[in-house]
Amino acid sequence: MPAVPPSPQRPPRRPRRRSPGRPAGDAGDLRARLLDAAVTGFARRGIAGSTLRDIARDAGTTPALVHYYFGNRDALLEAVIEERLMPVMQALRAPLLAAGDDLRALVRGFVRGVLDIAMAHPWLPQLWVREVLHEGGGLRGLMFDRIGPLLPRMLAVRFAQAQADGQLNPRLDPRLLVPSLVGQTMFLAASAPIWRGVFGADDIDADALCGHVLALLESGLELSE
Amino acid sequence: MPAVPPSPQRPPRRPRRRSPGRPAGDAGDLRARLLDAAVTGFARRGIAGSTLRDIARDAGTTPALVHYYFGNRDALLEAVIEERLMPVMQALRAPLLAAGDDLRALVRGFVRGVLDIAMAHPWLPQLWVREVLHEGGGLRGLMFDRIGPLLPRMLAVRFAQAQADGQLNPRLDPRLLVPSLVGQTMFLAASAPIWRGVFGADDIDADALCGHVLALLESGLELSE
Repeated sequence: MPAVPPSPQRPPRRPRRRSPGRPAGDAGDLRARLLDAAVTGFARRGIAGSTLRDIARDAGTTPALVHYYFGNRDALLEAVIEERLMPVMQALRAPLLAAGDDLRALVRGFVRGVLDIAMAHPWLPQLWVREVLHEGGGLRGLMFDRIGPLLPRMLAVRFAQAQADGQLNPRLDPRLLVPSLVGQTMFLAASAPIWRGVFGADDIDADALCGHVLALLESGLELSE
Repeated sequence: MPAVPPSPQRPPRRPRRRSPGRPAGDAGDLRARLLDAAVTGFARRGIAGSTLRDIARDAGTTPALVHYYFGNRDALLEAVIEERLMPVMQALRAPLLAAGDDLRALVRGFVRGVLDIAMAHPWLPQLWVREVLHEGGGLRGLMFDRIGPLLPRMLAVRFAQAQADGQLNPRLDPRLLVPSLVGQTMFLAASAPIWRGVFGADDIDADALCGHVLALLESGLELSE
């Protein structure tokens, strides 16, 4: 490990330890790779349980270079939020805004959107369990301050309006409908290793999961009288 | 702290450190109090993050007495599983067995049952998040080995039979319906601090929550065409 981190005036030296077969890349690649390693490590070990050294090792580089790019762990977490987490939330939100007052398109867009991002970013469901759903999770503040107003409150307002217009089951609570949807999407993604194990259900793919959830949401159990 | 734990031949001495105002009680009370402190501590700090010393302190007694009653942490965890966790699962299961082939009674019994036990045992939803839903959670093995066959598989078999008999929405997957129900009960209980915070929803009580969930399960969103 270099005794002194590289000076910001010079491009950082190529990391000394590099996993076999990893492409050489440039400085931008390394920064992106560190963000990827950080978000994966935060999901697996928790934010509080991840050191800069852990993240450097996961990215095949040195703690000095993590420090060079991000300073400390708080600044790294901030970069992960701005450059990994919030873009995913914004990408989920954009098509929902476009759904306008088409409630069916809104619900389908949310279900498909959350299942897709959970598949594309396998770190997301576990980060959510560990840092949001946990009491004392490190991203609960983010949920209250930024994600809550961005997506859940927007959805609840739409549901309340649709219900007032007679377009939604009047026995539902428009606010509770938001965690109900999360419970059919992000929760099903996060618990997949459990239900796949309990039921030996490796045959259920993303389309089958989405079809089941939409069937339940759109028409319920359809119990015979 | 006594240099030697009390001999099993004699009832344990009264703990020296005792929280002010705690009732004196007898040995059985202390053992039960230790189990309560353990299950609460496991939920709050995680199983791996809880020492016998933490649990002794929470129960207002000494590590020597925890050791006297339970030996080590593994044995304490085993006692928590047998005497706190499994009885709750059995109490949830009993009325569901009694529902026979009445699918509506089965679903209502599950929803009301899980919401009731989550309310009666506030440690349960957090223990479930931390030790089951987490990858690497300390109770995942218990879920696969004992709880899975006891409850989720029993439910999936009932759902599959009802579907074959034309009594259940044919577009649902009978296995996925089990985590779908968990996502409308245990998950809503575990995430209550979040959705109450995001929506300022302190007005939603247990009956309102149960009514919303049953409305969603029984008839879905009822979107207008």
